[in-house]
Order: sequence, then C-alpha cells, then structure tokens
Amino acid sequence: MNKPVILTGDRTTGPLHIGHYAGSLSNRLRYQDSHEQFLLLADTQALTDNAHDPGKVHRNVIEVALDYLAVGIDPDRTTICLQSHLPALAELSMLYLNFVTVSRLERNPTIKDEIRSRGFGRDIPAGFLCYPAAQAADITAFRATVVPVGEDQAPLIEQTNEIVRRINATAGVDILPEAQAVIPRSGRLPGIDGTSKMSKSGGNAIPLSASPDAIRAAVRAMFTDPNHLRVEDPGKVEGNVVFAYLDAFDDDEQGLDEIKAHYQRGGLGDGNIKKRLEEKLQALLAPIRERREQLAKDRSHVVEIIRRGTRRAHDRTETTKHEVINALGLIQL
Amino acid sequence: MNKPVILTGDRTTGPLHIGHYAGSLSNRLRYQDSHEQFLLLADTQALTDNAHDPGKVHRNVIEVALDYLAVGIDPDRTTICLQSHLPALAELSMLYLNFVTVSRLERNPTIKDEIRSRGFGRDIPAGFLCYPAAQAADITAFRATVVPVGEDQAPLIEQTNEIVRRINATAGVDILPEAQAVIPRSGRLPGIDGTSKMSKSGGNAIPLSASPDAIRAAVRAMFTDPNHLRVEDPGKVEGNVVFAYLDAFDDDEQGLDEIKAHYQRGGLGDGNIKKRLEEKLQALLAPIRERREQLAKDRSHVVEIIRRGTRRAHDRTETTKHEVINALGLIQL
Repeated sequence: MNKPVILTGDRTTGPLHIGHYAGSLSNRLRYQDSHEQFLLLADTQALTDNAHDPGKVHRNVIEVALDYLAVGIDPDRTTICLQSHLPALAELSMLYLNFVTVSRLERNPTIKDEIRSRGFGRDIPAGFLCYPAAQAADITAFRATVVPVGEDQAPLIEQTNEIVRRINATAGVDILPEAQAVIPRSGRLPGIDGTSKMSKSGGNAIPLSASPDAIRAAVRAMFTDPNHLRVEDPGKVEGNVVFAYLDAFDDDEQGLDEIKAHYQRGGLGDGNIKKRLEEKLQALLAPIRERREQLAKDRSHVVEIIRRGTRRAHDRTETTKHEVINALGLIQL
Repeated sequence: MNKPVILTGDRTTGPLHIGHYAGSLSNRLRYQDSHEQFLLLADTQALTDNAHDPGKVHRNVIEVALDYLAVGIDPDRTTICLQSHLPALAELSMLYLNFVTVSRLERNPTIKDEIRSRGFGRDIPAGFLCYPAAQAADITAFRATVVPVGEDQAPLIEQTNEIVRRINATAGVDILPEAQAVIPRSGRLPGIDGTSKMSKSGGNAIPLSASPDAIRAAVRAMFTDPNHLRVEDPGKVEGNVVFAYLDAFDDDEQGLDEIKAHYQRGGLGDGNIKKRLEEKLQALLAPIRERREQLAKDRSHVVEIIRRGTRRAHDRTETTKHEVINALGLIQL
C-alpha cells in the first residue's frame, strides 16, 4: 500500500449540499483510486460549537454517511469512519495540547475568523479554541500527508505541521510526517441568495437530497444580476449565482462561454440560463437522490459500513498512537 | 459496594517525600477501608508542564507506584491505575472542553497561581490551561464524590462541579454526581530550608526512600530559628521547620508541648529537638525504605499491579463514558 494517504471529512451538523459536491465530494470520488482515502465523520469536532445540541450531531452522522454513499463513495476503497469512536484521536489531542501554546492558538487566523463569525465574543468554548490540536491529531493519527481544505483553512495545516515538528524534535526522530494542504481549484460556491457562502444552516443551500421541486424552486429564487431587468439589457456574469453554479456543474465550457457572452451583451433572459442550470442540477442530483432513498431504507446497513470503516481506522490510529508514545519515551504497560 | 468513591493520586514527576506522607499518603491508608479508593498515577497530567521531558514522566510512574506500595497501600483494597492508559479520560476531557469557556479557565485562581509560579508568561501550554477540564474528566469518570486536595486546589473541584452541572443540564438528567473537596487538616509541610513548600524538584525534600545518612543530613541542615544562637536563648516555634515536622510526625502531643515550652523559654538546643525529630523520621522511614527496596527488586511485579488496577479502572471509566454519551444523546455504534 504505497498510495499517499489522504484525510478528509465533514462535521456532522447537517446533510451535505451541492456546494460540498463541487468543492470536495467530486474530488473524493477521484481520490478513491489514486490515494488511500479516509473520510472522517467529524462528530467530535461538530460538538466544539454544538455542545448545546448533541442530538443534532448524532442524527447527522447517518445523514452525512448517506450522502457519501449516495454520491458514489465506495466503502471498499474509501474508509468511512466515526471520529468519536477512535479514542486515539482524543488521546493524541490531549498530548498535542501540551505542544502548542494558548497564544499560538489564539493567533490562528482561521480560529480568529471563526470565533468572529460564530459570535462567541469572550465566551469561546475551550474545545473550540483547541480544535486545531485535535485536527493535528486526526491528520497525524492516519499518517495523512494530503489534506484538502478550503483556502481559509490552510493555517490549520500549518499549525498541524508545527506540532509535528515539535513532537519529532522532542522524540529526536521523525516519527510523524508533515502534511500538505490541497486547496481545490473550484472555490466555495455562494449560497443561492448570493450574499454569503452556501451553508448547511444558512437556508441558502441545495441539499444533495433535494426533491425535483425543491431544486426548481431554489434555481428560480437564485440571485442573478439585479440590474438585468429586461431580456435585452446587458447582464453581469460576476456575482451572478447562476453562472457561478454553471461554472461548477456545466462541463460544456465552450457552450457556457457563448452563453456568458450573450448574457453580457444583452438578449438572454434569466429564465433561459436558469433553465440550463436546472437541467444540469436535476440530472446530477436525480441518481444521487435515488441511491440515497434506497440506502436510507436500510439504516442498519449504513451503520454496519461505518462500523467496519471505524474498525479499520481504529487499527491505524492506535498503531500511530503507540508509535508516538514509544518515540517520546512514554510508558506503555 | 456502597462505600463513597474517593479519587486521589500524584503527578509522576518525581518520587514522593515525607510531605506527601503527612499530607496525603497517611490519609489514604485510612481511606482503604472506609472508601472505594482509586489512586491515579497522573502521567498525562504531568505532561502538561513536562512535555519537554517525557522520559522523566515515564520513569517516575514506577517510582511513585513503589512509594504507594512501600507505605502500605494495598492494591487489593485500593485501585492503583495509570492515567495515560485510560482512554475514557482523554475522551471525556475533550468532551468537557466544550462545556467550559476559555475565559472561565483563565479566571481559575489555581491555574493563575500555577501559571505564575511556573513562569510560563504568555507561553502557557494549551494542555496546562485545559487541565481543570481533564481533572473534571478524571473525577467524574470514576464517579468520585470525595476528592482530597490542597487548600489552593479547591477551585478545581468547583470547576469540576460547574462542568457536571452543565452536562447534567444538557442531558436533562443528573447523570454525573458533584464532588466534594476534602482539605486535609494538616497543611503542607515546608521544605527543610523553611523558605517554601517541600517539592519534588526543589531539593528541599526528604524522599520516602531516603537513606539513614540522608535523613540525618537533612535534619541537621534543617532551618530552625536563626536568632536562637545560644542554648540558653529563647527560641521561636513558629516558622521553625523542626517543630513543623514534629507536629506532623510526633504523636506524643503532651511531650511535644513541653518541649515547645522549654524551647520558647530558653535552655533547649537545636541539636536536642533535631535528635528527637531524626529518631521519629528514622523510625517512620526505615520500614518504608526496606519494603521499597524489596519491591524495587521485582519491577515486573509492580508493573503487574499497575496493569491489574488499570484494567479495573478501565471498566469503571468506560462505563461512565458510555453513560454520559448515552445521556447526552450522542451516537453509539
């Protein structure tokens, strides 16, 4: 098994949406053959800002797993595993917290932004401040060297590598590899309202499980160019959500370029471009929704898949933990 | 098993000394019958300010266990267990960190004092700031309701109970009991230099394993009353280390009162009171040292005792973890 190890995953706070498909799921389908891929159902991390609602975190473990399987993640080629059931991750997290200072965590730009956007103010849960150390535990426990992240999360990988270097320096041996952030070319999709990023909780997303009617309604409500009032007016492509989505889901680049030019010089109505997008989304989501509905009928089968992947991940993460403990010269009974 | 559960233990940063005997070990001997007692070899906690020297933390696991057994801790009545080998403690720690804010941890008076005394400045290891949550995990995982602590550590138990109340409120059921701090009547012993508390690393302690010569030398070097220059001068009892130790180790209260009065009115030399103390200490430590030397010959036996206790503790802490997860409505595969 000499394929590079990739770790990726999702916080289990809600079902996934087409933004996840464009930004990560479609890449994960490709990584299944080229990489040894671990997909983490990150319920422990989800709790760092959802401790008041553990039931939500619980319910969405199965929802996210259903999304994975529905889009074509193959549990024989990708290990789907549950973070809370891998004790080595918690143990390594606690260990790594000793190798990072409070002020370093507070300086992390990702954490600073997220603290602001969540409105924590002074009441930051300690678990939230500490989650970069937990993420370092996740990455290193799997010995992942490739970690796909959003552009805004690249500092977390730098934080991981700082911890890796400290552990290696203390151990006097390169027991852990550094990881490389891979930032997907396609940026984050905007929400259908065009004002912010698409988010599970923002009410501005199209879930992978959306019904045909819901897809149609979402596309109709989509933000375009507010100054494009008459068909014959020139329209703007930048900031136009329909074109952002077409860029992500329409493979016909040449056709798309022509439509953009037409829209920009005037004479192409919003109804027209929305029709094109809706067709693409209906075609993309129909088989996903169908597989998802099938899979959802037998939840115990999904649980069994998670259980099997978690067992595999358990072996891997326990092995790494013992290697780290051993290299540091800590006791093993 | 309806005895109250007591949790106590020591960071494995050095062998124990007579200050531990007076302040905690002697009480633990008494608790063996009245309580269900767990004794934690706190190697994980020791790392929160010793991550640069994991070997020291490792070596002292056996040293501290030897001290326990040498003073008469009976592994059949007291469960001696190793913190790093109880994954539920790390898992509950990570969970509890979501139920306490960073500013609450920073306000903790014990932590503030310890940060000052360790000279961390701005470079506080995150694990050190977070250790009150880890201590809450220790206490609750064993379902301990009695926790002996030094006076300066009582705020840590209050912190534990705050987390307990939050967990219970989120679960909607009193799944965890609150704990009560028990502050031993005898305060902390001063170091032999009289300037600060006795500490493993301060070079001012008498280890339980001290040789007869080392005991004699320590008593001779002991700080008394610097103004008590001639035997016939009146001497001071307060701040006099010899009397502090006699208070702790001399059961003959009446005899001791007479000596104190004699010393205070003049006519009793330091050599005299030091002789009395040395006899007490030699008598106390001789059988401890002897048992310790015997036990140290068969380290695998000590490891086996720790292993057995850790297995017992593992069952207990895993059970609690599952109860907490269940009560919070988190997923269990």
